[in-house]
Amino acid sequence: MVAAEDPESFFATAPPLRDAGAVTATVQEFIARNSHPSEGGGLRRIVCVTSGGTTVPLEQRCVRYIDNFSSGHRGAASTEYFLKAGYAVIFVHRRGSCQPYCRFLPDDSFLKFFDVNAESKVQVAESHAAIVEKAIGEYCKAIEGGSLLKLPFTTIFEYLQLLKMVAASMSSVGLHGMFYLAAAVSDFYVPWDSMAKHKIQSAGGPLDMRLSQVPKMLSVLRNQWAPLAFCISFKLETDSDILVQKADMALNKYKMNIVVANLLATYKEEVIIVTNDERNTIRRCHKDEDLEEHIIKLLEESHSKYIYSRTNGCNKNDYEKLISFDIKSLA
Amino acid sequence: MVAAEDPESFFATAPPLRDAGAVTATVQEFIARNSHPSEGGGLRRIVCVTSGGTTVPLEQRCVRYIDNFSSGHRGAASTEYFLKAGYAVIFVHRRGSCQPYCRFLPDDSFLKFFDVNAESKVQVAESHAAIVEKAIGEYCKAIEGGSLLKLPFTTIFEYLQLLKMVAASMSSVGLHGMFYLAAAVSDFYVPWDSMAKHKIQSAGGPLDMRLSQVPKMLSVLRNQWAPLAFCISFKLETDSDILVQKADMALNKYKMNIVVANLLATYKEEVIIVTNDERNTIRRCHKDEDLEEHIIKLLEESHSKYIYSRTNGCNKNDYEKLISFDIKSLA
Repeated sequence: MVAAEDPESFFATAPPLRDAGAVTATVQEFIARNSHPSEGGGLRRIVCVTSGGTTVPLEQRCVRYIDNFSSGHRGAASTEYFLKAGYAVIFVHRRGSCQPYCRFLPDDSFLKFFDVNAESKVQVAESHAAIVEKAIGEYCKAIEGGSLLKLPFTTIFEYLQLLKMVAASMSSVGLHGMFYLAAAVSDFYVPWDSMAKHKIQSAGGPLDMRLSQVPKMLSVLRNQWAPLAFCISFKLETDSDILVQKADMALNKYKMNIVVANLLATYKEEVIIVTNDERNTIRRCHKDEDLEEHIIKLLEESHSKYIYSRTNGCNKNDYEKLISFDIKSLA
Repeated sequence: MVAAEDPESFFATAPPLRDAGAVTATVQEFIARNSHPSEGGGLRRIVCVTSGGTTVPLEQRCVRYIDNFSSGHRGAASTEYFLKAGYAVIFVHRRGSCQPYCRFLPDDSFLKFFDVNAESKVQVAESHAAIVEKAIGEYCKAIEGGSLLKLPFTTIFEYLQLLKMVAASMSSVGLHGMFYLAAAVSDFYVPWDSMAKHKIQSAGGPLDMRLSQVPKMLSVLRNQWAPLAFCISFKLETDSDILVQKADMALNKYKMNIVVANLLATYKEEVIIVTNDERNTIRRCHKDEDLEEHIIKLLEESHSKYIYSRTNGCNKNDYEKLISFDIKSLA
């Protein structure tokens, strides 16, 4: 059994991404098309938003897999606000998870929101007309405007290969690139070459499983794939006692610019924005408000300052003061 | 740690079904409304179709869970053909899995199939008009006709509680009830009261897990919950060498009337129908054909003979000859 807890052997043993060549070409074309100077004069910014949970197959011909809970709501909502703020967005998302502009639609909205009229033509049910027209209208606008690229994944193998490829492609935009890593990424997995080939049989009593740790790719992203990009990672916990401590650890260990910490029970109402100097809580004031609107406003400003400070050589302390000042004014 | 591999302790320790009272009332009302005499004179038949995979939470405040692969395509297609054959259908399905009449739609058909016209009104994209009108039209007809009841589940705990409740409610239709158990049910699980309360931390090297076997509820369904119903279970394997042997075992051990055996790689093209006397292969002749059309035709006839033989006291051997004769003529 190969331990495969280091990045090299993870990629060496992973099943290769399907259509890797075509997907890479699409990403590079999207970045080239969107990295022209923006209206304000500077280079247009591009953000890679990751969203939804990754799966870990337990069998090569996969029947069973371990999944990570994530509706993808945060990533979808954030994508909408990044687009509104003028970013081009590469939306790396779990297949079937929540999509931008569709957050207010129920699971089987396709069946619930339409009916067939007397002439056998499909029409939007009157009661849902407004919400459906808004969703489809805004989505079509983003796609037609060429500012949104959607890349789906299911397994941890697909996710990390996509992330690596997007990071390599985004290196051309340097400081103007952002990684907003909201996906719920598996911590444990079964290396492909030590995986059962067939469905595990259930006749023999309890099942004992040993899972390896997924290599910590945030380090690799920061140090090798995207050393210049502005990087935001997320920390989701269920236990409030360890949340901020874990976020601090992630910030320092992986050299993230910002860690967004949240609890499963309250992730729609409250996040803690953790930087090197500060921990600030952003709370939603009323139910119809999107927490993501505030988060993305803050990140856009922090990203501006990051680009400014790195371009103009202001020192790290000054930059961090700039960032923390703004968080205070917003919180 | 409680072993919880017997049915009683499974249910005793499972988190209770949400809205159990309201769901039960809906099911009972559906059965009462649909168990009137059919047009042919006999009692109308009701089938409980289970579809999609169950999950097994690994943490009480669930971030991680083990999932069983199943698109729900088989259950959704079969539901359409059962409705066509005059059955009332209780469709017990995994949330988000394939829905009846939506099999030909891609995942995000909501976004792909519609656009907004010059007057800001949503319309079906011309290229997809036919498929969308057919799907929504047929679905609306089934729902309005009151012959289809959809009950969603996610976890193994929800699934087995729903199945038990539906079986108890269907006991009133006796021989006219059918269970078509196409769901991919977890074989292993973590009993609720031995489950980690919080998200399992990833700092400490590899993760060792011990999973208990889920109690074999097919036995309980057959012997206690639904002794009179016509029961069909499914056997999915990835290894063709053990498929039929496993199907035979299920037939005998759980006293199913029929086991439908299929391989993951070819489940859309081929199934083996296993009864006490026979193993017959049904193959799809061309790509546009639904295997489920043939399966449901066969099951409807077998169910008729089952009702006849049990009502008229013909003996078990005669009944099995009746069934196997028909399989031969169809295969």
